[in-house]
Amino acid sequence: MPARDLAEPYPHVTTDDPAVDAARLLAEQNLPALLVLDTDGIPYAVVPGSQVVGQVVPEYVMEDPLLAAVIDERHADALAEGLAGRTVAEWLPRRTFKPLYVGPDAGVLQIAAVMARAHVPLVAVVERDSGEERGRLVGVVTAAALMRHFLAAGDQA
Amino acid sequence: MPARDLAEPYPHVTTDDPAVDAARLLAEQNLPALLVLDTDGIPYAVVPGSQVVGQVVPEYVMEDPLLAAVIDERHADALAEGLAGRTVAEWLPRRTFKPLYVGPDAGVLQIAAVMARAHVPLVAVVERDSGEERGRLVGVVTAAALMRHFLAAGDQA
Repeated sequence: MPARDLAEPYPHVTTDDPAVDAARLLAEQNLPALLVLDTDGIPYAVVPGSQVVGQVVPEYVMEDPLLAAVIDERHADALAEGLAGRTVAEWLPRRTFKPLYVGPDAGVLQIAAVMARAHVPLVAVVERDSGEERGRLVGVVTAAALMRHFLAAGDQA
Repeated sequence: MPARDLAEPYPHVTTDDPAVDAARLLAEQNLPALLVLDTDGIPYAVVPGSQVVGQVVPEYVMEDPLLAAVIDERHADALAEGLAGRTVAEWLPRRTFKPLYVGPDAGVLQIAAVMARAHVPLVAVVERDSGEERGRLVGVVTAAALMRHFLAAGDQA
């Protein structure tokens, strides 16, 4: 089954949205990863849940986890403040969270290999006409959708 | 807020269950990661969705993604066969997918740092009485649950 047939819609935020909306989307919908589109509707970033959490942790704590135990609750309220007044694009640097994508003809094994190697549970399917630079988002394939496909193929075999 | 108060129940399979049940649980519930408990109810493995997918991809494809485009559909039905007749423990090697865990007194920043560093969206909270070797699973903290906590703390600030 080609990527175009596996691709599904997926909740997203855009680069201009408030950063807090992105955090809320992941939190409220229990999403495996956050999908960020630019204002043209093209994938700007895909951020796995563990890395969205990482964006809220101060750099000095990431570098020295022992500090986390000490400063903890005192600064918990300051964490969400890092989001306040920022857009998604300001909060999530594009080069750190480059989206994975495949063309509409990519097969399931190819998508699975891309996903597993990058440790990212979401691959965007982007269609591009010849000569067209940016393309168009067909949908995304999640790890769960891929597993549904593999299981269905196994049932038929 | 300590880990014991953030910990929640989470769907799981056990090491003796059929591997196909584990694949199905992730697929049907759109889980960010698979939680595997041993027969004593202690975390045996935590496998992010992207790595569950990786377990279905043949080793030679992971090593040479160009192959994926070639062999694709012909072997799609063989993929799910790798699951047939195996238990979860046989399918998912423990040492590859060691669960992350913290004690019940760990704070939110500590959990967040553990999660972000390991790129795993689920941390188990395990309580151990002194002298007790194995402990008891209190619950798990997901990336989404942590973000809900940070956002709530921000609203109150």
